[in-house]
Amino acid sequence: MVIAEIVVVPLGTGTSISKYVAQCHQVLDQWGLKYQLTPMSTIVEGPLDEIMEVVKKMHEVPFENGAHRVSTSIRIDDRRDKKITMEGKVSAVEEKKIK
Amino acid sequence: MVIAEIVVVPLGTGTSISKYVAQCHQVLDQWGLKYQLTPMSTIVEGPLDEIMEVVKKMHEVPFENGAHRVSTSIRIDDRRDKKITMEGKVSAVEEKKIK
Amino acid sequence: MVIAEIVVVPLGTGTSISKYVAQCHQVLDQWGLKYQLTPMSTIVEGPLDEIMEVVKKMHEVPFENGAHRVSTSIRIDDRRDKKITMEGKVSAVEEKKIK
Amino acid sequence: MVIAEIVVVPLGTGTSISKYVAQCHQVLDQWGLKYQLTPMSTIVEGPLDEIMEVVKKMHEVPFENGAHRVSTSIRIDDRRDKKITMEGKVSAVEEKKIK
Repeated sequence: MVIAEIVVVPLGTGTSISKYVAQCHQVLDQWGLKYQLTPMSTIVEGPLDEIMEVVKKMHEVPFENGAHRVSTSIRIDDRRDKKITMEGKVSAVEEKKIK
Repeated sequence: MVIAEIVVVPLGTGTSISKYVAQCHQVLDQWGLKYQLTPMSTIVEGPLDEIMEVVKKMHEVPFENGAHRVSTSIRIDDRRDKKITMEGKVSAVEEKKIK
Repeated sequence: MVIAEIVVVPLGTGTSISKYVAQCHQVLDQWGLKYQLTPMSTIVEGPLDEIMEVVKKMHEVPFENGAHRVSTSIRIDDRRDKKITMEGKVSAVEEKKIK
Repeated sequence: MVIAEIVVVPLGTGTSISKYVAQCHQVLDQWGLKYQLTPMSTIVEGPLDEIMEVVKKMHEVPFENGAHRVSTSIRIDDRRDKKITMEGKVSAVEEKKIK
């Protein structure tokens, strides 16, 4: 299980991209991967192979809607000495702030 | 006002970095910039000049705690045809998902 | 054919990571994908499916050498209104500087 | 002295962005910072304070040419146990490949 941040940006389609992000989330909903929307990205949690497959589908979304160029970024956090989760990573920071 | 994603990663200090993230947030608290922690980054909202200054201070945090190498990333989203906020960006996507 | 930038960073293994990058390039050499080393990343050119497969193999390199946490980033530039190459992208900028 | 990778991407201005990159390089030429163009980014070498100032100027380039939204990314590699240079980072990898 890894945590990955995904950003799909169409170029040349206008200043707003929220429409494409919403459609990318439909892909994630159909796939069933756990995800979280942030103001700058979508963060997913799951097996790396599945995430790589779903990213390829998300990357196609703007092309299917008329874009001619898409910039897609993925940043994978893979830790194997202990299990990581989206909630666990946030609470690990929050706990250290309280102390 | 821009929205920016910040990631500060010390190299060679161990597998856990939450301690450094918590200290970076103390810098943000002292500065008074609005921010949000996600499982993969810290997102801030404010004037670009201030964000660039605070990133320089956050970048020093791991060095002050013994790190010898730090990789810091900033991704700035600056839109000038309309005001953007962290909440507004998320709700723009959520609205399109409901429809 | 897309162009993609790949960065594989092990956490907690020391300040130098060039050893891991060199081994990641062995993976690329075996695969036969065209690539270019820069001071900040490795850039590859090829079919998206192949690139995603080879990134998964590159991501395993630090784990096979003792790392317990790896942060891997991929940024894909996919343009479908015209063919892009690594050389073509650089010369498109250089030409505009001469004029 | 740090090494930083800079990517300035205007949204909604068309599929080609090489024109903006060329103008960003004019900013770098005027400033006098050492830089290198790659197929996916511009890499600079210099003092962190100067780089942060020049990035702010590069970020303005697309706005000055009609863009209404710009996404600018900076990734800083700062190592303080030894001096790093753009050439040195590349050759450290190449040497390990020969062995």
